[in-house]
Amino acid sequence: MLKTTERKSFLYNPIKLTPPQILAILFGVLIIFGGFLLKLPIATEKGISWVDAFFTAISAATVTGLVTLDPGSTYTLFGEIVILFLIQVGGLGIMSFAVLVVIMLGKQIGIKQRLIMQEALNQPSIGGVIRLVRNLFIFSIVIEAIAVFLLSLRWVPDLGFSKGVYYSIFHTIAAYNNAGFGLWPDNLTRYVGDPVVNLVITMLIIMGGLGFTVIVDLWIAKEWRNLSLHSRVMILGTIIVNVIAITLFYLFEQNNPETLGALSESDKLWAAYFQGISPRTAGFNTVNIGALEDGSVLLTILLMFIGAGSTSTGGGIKLTTFLVIVFAVITFLKGKNETIMMKRTIRNAIIFRALAISTISILFVFLGAVLLTLTEDSPFLPVLFEVVSAFGTVGLTMGLTFELSFLGKLIIMFIMFFGKLGPLTMAFSLARPAKENIRYPDGDVFTG
Amino acid sequence: MLKTTERKSFLYNPIKLTPPQILAILFGVLIIFGGFLLKLPIATEKGISWVDAFFTAISAATVTGLVTLDPGSTYTLFGEIVILFLIQVGGLGIMSFAVLVVIMLGKQIGIKQRLIMQEALNQPSIGGVIRLVRNLFIFSIVIEAIAVFLLSLRWVPDLGFSKGVYYSIFHTIAAYNNAGFGLWPDNLTRYVGDPVVNLVITMLIIMGGLGFTVIVDLWIAKEWRNLSLHSRVMILGTIIVNVIAITLFYLFEQNNPETLGALSESDKLWAAYFQGISPRTAGFNTVNIGALEDGSVLLTILLMFIGAGSTSTGGGIKLTTFLVIVFAVITFLKGKNETIMMKRTIRNAIIFRALAISTISILFVFLGAVLLTLTEDSPFLPVLFEVVSAFGTVGLTMGLTFELSFLGKLIIMFIMFFGKLGPLTMAFSLARPAKENIRYPDGDVFTG
Ligand SMILES: [K+]
Ligand SMILES: [K+]
Repeated sequence: MLKTTERKSFLYNPIKLTPPQILAILFGVLIIFGGFLLKLPIATEKGISWVDAFFTAISAATVTGLVTLDPGSTYTLFGEIVILFLIQVGGLGIMSFAVLVVIMLGKQIGIKQRLIMQEALNQPSIGGVIRLVRNLFIFSIVIEAIAVFLLSLRWVPDLGFSKGVYYSIFHTIAAYNNAGFGLWPDNLTRYVGDPVVNLVITMLIIMGGLGFTVIVDLWIAKEWRNLSLHSRVMILGTIIVNVIAITLFYLFEQNNPETLGALSESDKLWAAYFQGISPRTAGFNTVNIGALEDGSVLLTILLMFIGAGSTSTGGGIKLTTFLVIVFAVITFLKGKNETIMMKRTIRNAIIFRALAISTISILFVFLGAVLLTLTEDSPFLPVLFEVVSAFGTVGLTMGLTFELSFLGKLIIMFIMFFGKLGPLTMAFSLARPAKENIRYPDGDVFTG
Repeated sequence: MLKTTERKSFLYNPIKLTPPQILAILFGVLIIFGGFLLKLPIATEKGISWVDAFFTAISAATVTGLVTLDPGSTYTLFGEIVILFLIQVGGLGIMSFAVLVVIMLGKQIGIKQRLIMQEALNQPSIGGVIRLVRNLFIFSIVIEAIAVFLLSLRWVPDLGFSKGVYYSIFHTIAAYNNAGFGLWPDNLTRYVGDPVVNLVITMLIIMGGLGFTVIVDLWIAKEWRNLSLHSRVMILGTIIVNVIAITLFYLFEQNNPETLGALSESDKLWAAYFQGISPRTAGFNTVNIGALEDGSVLLTILLMFIGAGSTSTGGGIKLTTFLVIVFAVITFLKGKNETIMMKRTIRNAIIFRALAISTISILFVFLGAVLLTLTEDSPFLPVLFEVVSAFGTVGLTMGLTFELSFLGKLIIMFIMFFGKLGPLTMAFSLARPAKENIRYPDGDVFTG
């Protein structure tokens, strides 16, 4: 978050773009680049329309995973590699990627780049941003290499060496970036009870979803009490939310013959485990999302809306935003003045930020759902599901993506783009900083 | 809102009930009393089940208007008068009613009764509460008398003298209390284009929905600039929200053959006018709610959730709560520190209160919708509509109320009860005031 005075220091920026605006433009360039590549004849088996090419490009660059066409059978190897490239660049962030390139070229990083980085990584201070980015890349590559090795143990025997390794690489990058793209038409449903696939994919999802700062913090702090408040809240919050989600998913679906009901007892547990973790905001699935009970669908919508961690590749309002609001409400109900999380006082500015993010997000999702009900001839729940999935860059669908009208595709494309850049970033770039020093007297309104 | 110290002064209250708890108990007594009366053989034409009797009692006492049976054909005149009685007592508030009785008996009002009143009327101070209640009754009776006269002009010619006057009285009380009960099986659909019915009913709805303090303020202040901030926000907010709702409703429904599409141009305008005003939180309808486009349904859900004004007979999170949040978010996006509404600073305590009310309400509605999807075999949108309608004590339905299962009826009954007592009141009575004087250092979490 940048203050007005900092923004004003961009004197060498002739058209005075704010960091969020620059981010949006860079994302736009990446998407246009990717869309054109995917439209090339060598990218697809039979050719696709412009809107489908750009839909895929936005979905990949925003690490969402919603697809209007089955990627595995639509795209050639070249097309799939374009998608992987968009996922990796989009996931780690254009900004951190740009800084990496600069570092590798041995150039100095200027204040402007650092400010853009700060916005991209949501870091409270400029210092340490460069080191953060360097560590980010090293750590990511190590994690991904381990995952590729483990998945190959399963998929090389199933698919042969080259295809097995390639599938392991593809799904590792997709999972670590919470991108939800799969090469099988049924996503990962065929591995519903497979311990290796379940554990490796969910570990990648969780690690990618915690947010890079948490991982780095874990690395440096070594002990729980040395961790930052943010890291401790993220780790405990992730565990608690996942356990609740897995339990509820199991309870809601255990007797549904189209999902868990048909599985063995151990497969049921694996399926509930996977589907409890994936909605925030990975987007992989091992059961048919379109066949879920309404209760599970609503639970999934809530999880998709909450999303992953700040500085992660995931979307949503972010787990910390949700928890800050929960704690602020509890504080209010207890009649206390200060919101305490793990023996730390949360400043009002943070609570207001969380309030702003949540409110804008709810209104945005609501508006998106209204628009999509006007363009699509579908029951409401799949529409709401689709909108929240796009907003949270999740990628799960009840089946609506394949049936979207032209206008519906455009709406979902816009929601994915907005969802990735973040409600707040977008809002900041739209709102003009206004000067107002008049002090008004207090006024009372009754609420509730 | 009462502070802990004030609650502790109830030394003569042996079981230490808080005012919200006393309110809940009194409401419970009213409902039980009403439920038994409606179960009496003389109350119904053919007899009804216990659950339907109590469903009607809760719906009437909470001024909701959801019905599992058509009131006009199910109840005798005695039964209908019981319903009217429950609406009037519930609408004006058990507490204000109790105080009125005490005043009429010429007795002194003690501090305890005043505190309960304060909670019921949501007044910031005890002073003036008694005068407020006395004015409330005089004003209500005058307004209702005028409305009965005007409606009789329409309904006496249509229905004959005694039935016409009776229908005028019934619908006047129902509309002024935002209760949504009608004696025709199609509610007011047959008067979709009737100017007298449209104008009288909507004026009663708006007046009842502004909240009594606003009406009294208008009476006393005489000029706009003398009005309290709360009154000005409510009046302007009501006008703006209604105009937006009417416009959107017209746009969404003008070509729907099952609603506005079949009407003449002037009837279309009346229907949009009525249906834009009624959801907050009157519950009358002049078109078939079950046939609305999804966009209008979502708009109606939002309006039902927002609800009417504080100190009104309506429900929902209240218009001021919604507006405080909107203003707080805009303030944050503009990078300012203080939320200003009409040149008055809104204190943080009020913003947190609004945040708490909204968050609890959203979670409550979400939970209610999850539960109702488990008990009912219905598409999601009618379920969500039903839950929000019950929560906001609105009374509109897409048709689900008539088909509710036994468990579904119990869920909606609970939601109406909770919705009437107010998310905050309920939460206050559940939460225990805790002592905590430890001052923790500030902590940072990243949100969004
Ligand atoms: K995703
Ligand atoms: K009502």
